[in-house]
Amino acid sequence: MSGSIGKVATRFFEFHNPRKPLPLRVGGKLSRFTLAYEMYGRMNADKSNVILLFHAMTGSQHAAGLNREVPGVNGRWTEELHEGWWDAFIGPGRALDTRKFCVICANYLGGCYGSTGPASINPQTGKPWGPTFPVLRIIDIVESQLRLLDALGVKKLHAVVGGSIGGYLSLLLATRYPKRVKIVVPIGTSATTTIIHRILNFEQITAIESDLNFRGGDYYDGPRPDVGLALARRIAHKTFVSPDTLRERARGVLVSHKPPHGWYEMNHPVESYMLHQGEKFVQRFDANTYLRIVDAWQWFDLVAEAGARDFHELFARCQHQEFLVFSMDSDVSFHPQEQSKLVHLLKDAQVPVMWITVHSEKGHDSFLLEPRLFTPHLAQALNR
Amino acid sequence: MSGSIGKVATRFFEFHNPRKPLPLRVGGKLSRFTLAYEMYGRMNADKSNVILLFHAMTGSQHAAGLNREVPGVNGRWTEELHEGWWDAFIGPGRALDTRKFCVICANYLGGCYGSTGPASINPQTGKPWGPTFPVLRIIDIVESQLRLLDALGVKKLHAVVGGSIGGYLSLLLATRYPKRVKIVVPIGTSATTTIIHRILNFEQITAIESDLNFRGGDYYDGPRPDVGLALARRIAHKTFVSPDTLRERARGVLVSHKPPHGWYEMNHPVESYMLHQGEKFVQRFDANTYLRIVDAWQWFDLVAEAGARDFHELFARCQHQEFLVFSMDSDVSFHPQEQSKLVHLLKDAQVPVMWITVHSEKGHDSFLLEPRLFTPHLAQALNR
Repeated sequence: MSGSIGKVATRFFEFHNPRKPLPLRVGGKLSRFTLAYEMYGRMNADKSNVILLFHAMTGSQHAAGLNREVPGVNGRWTEELHEGWWDAFIGPGRALDTRKFCVICANYLGGCYGSTGPASINPQTGKPWGPTFPVLRIIDIVESQLRLLDALGVKKLHAVVGGSIGGYLSLLLATRYPKRVKIVVPIGTSATTTIIHRILNFEQITAIESDLNFRGGDYYDGPRPDVGLALARRIAHKTFVSPDTLRERARGVLVSHKPPHGWYEMNHPVESYMLHQGEKFVQRFDANTYLRIVDAWQWFDLVAEAGARDFHELFARCQHQEFLVFSMDSDVSFHPQEQSKLVHLLKDAQVPVMWITVHSEKGHDSFLLEPRLFTPHLAQALNR
Repeated sequence: MSGSIGKVATRFFEFHNPRKPLPLRVGGKLSRFTLAYEMYGRMNADKSNVILLFHAMTGSQHAAGLNREVPGVNGRWTEELHEGWWDAFIGPGRALDTRKFCVICANYLGGCYGSTGPASINPQTGKPWGPTFPVLRIIDIVESQLRLLDALGVKKLHAVVGGSIGGYLSLLLATRYPKRVKIVVPIGTSATTTIIHRILNFEQITAIESDLNFRGGDYYDGPRPDVGLALARRIAHKTFVSPDTLRERARGVLVSHKPPHGWYEMNHPVESYMLHQGEKFVQRFDANTYLRIVDAWQWFDLVAEAGARDFHELFARCQHQEFLVFSMDSDVSFHPQEQSKLVHLLKDAQVPVMWITVHSEKGHDSFLLEPRLFTPHLAQALNR
């Protein structure tokens, strides 16, 4: 029998270790931070059944079940977040079967759903961190979650799973701490930041930073940089859905001719659709968090952040692991050729790898929307 | 022998006809406007050897030869414009052979290189038109150029040639006034505005309109909306060059780590390359003109603007014409499948059409950069 896990609550891991703070890659350290996380299913006696799931860029710790409230997240916990973002994948009898496994998902350090980030209060000043929040790299997010695993007493993960830039985190954890991971499932991701991502991300950075209200990130006591953040979201969003899906979604009605500001009048439903995507997004996300994660994405360097010499040495560390790599054939954001490169790097390093390409018309977002395309192989890999 | 035509000068056509003003599609009319144009080669006795060339979105009337100065264009006539944008295609012995043909190219109505546009002085107020400049559609730009042809006594064009949205103008002129055109050469264009163009154009509109300095288009006595216009250019530019070209161009040196504003530090040459593209562009272009042309692009409706019932009736008007359609296989902006659709519409209407796809690694911009790929077929079609 397969079903949802019902109501869940976010938990908070408080890291506080002045003697052994979390060192950050670019510089500085955090002796104190909070991670918001959720946990589904039970740990077994030797804590060997834990799956760590990494959310994508604008996701949250709330991956499964129903959660109507996360304390301290102000108005950002909007209704679209109440159902877990991978609910159809997690639960008794589902791909990540909670009768066997304990699934943990944590909001990124730097995030805006309960983990310490730019919108959090800096205990030293009593004000939001804003632009003074330290610069993050992907490895810092990985390290922060290892502190959580340490606190929970989890020495070795049964699996790490992550899609999109959640895949970066999976790859980095598996290669930086190879002994702590058994199975690795990167979905619609890449071993590097692609040229087109660099370009799109940089456009988004400009859109946010040039918003009049952004004020260098110091906007928490005034109006928010919603126009810039909404434009950033639009720039990204079009790459997450396939061109076919865009055409489909654009068949609707043109809701309004007039965008909220300006001279231009919209003339096509795809414009009001994109406008709506942007407007909806700014209700639930913080611009500084967005910028921090995009920054970490731009600077992502798997080899360097894992402390390896090159890709061969990096992946040779993973020969005892098992990889299940997923591609989606209509993914125009993380194109299947990116996973092809990853798979070849793994094979060159003699890592056991299975590579599955699913056919979908939903583009990159397919891994959030179509559990039936992924469940059989996920279940096989995890249950072996 | 093949060679450049040397030094040229922009001429100015002054339309002034209070009794028969130019009616505009959305409403209003212009009893007075200027078109900046250039002319290469000589008209024959019956003026039957004229080729009208339409520039692309941010192009100018200066298609061939050398022109260091255009009066009244302030600082926008930067050095990169001094050589004609199709110089390698126009001249004695070149594809558009000036020993045989007279080539005319005019800056769009609404433009910023000498034709009347938002940056021009409105004679009724003595101030720049700015946001009060009338809304334009593609047909208005076509009609304005027909007034120029009328004034020059050109009844029937030997050919119309245009790439990118210059192709829209070619198609519209050929279908709206089928008796005035013999040969039609649309290059890397489409019969409709595509979904992806709608999305990218709308992003660009938001980028410009949300710039603090844009002030609804009323910025001529203050700082210009350069940040928004530069971002708009970046959003478009990435689609004009192929991914391979971007990778190639990105191999250069990272010029500066710090963009002119903001918190983010660039980390890759492709970012400084894109930044440079944006910064260079705002030196030579006006934001209001950009917005007007993007607006006309968004609203482009070939069938309606040509006064036809449907595509079949539209193109059936062209059965006596000859079409030469060009595609570039690496064009990610106007994808070859767009020209495929156009060619099928033409064939369905029994219009003589030749369709040539050139292989290029330079993407959409190939038609500006690689004369050898286009010259043989252009010459054959024009000289028949």
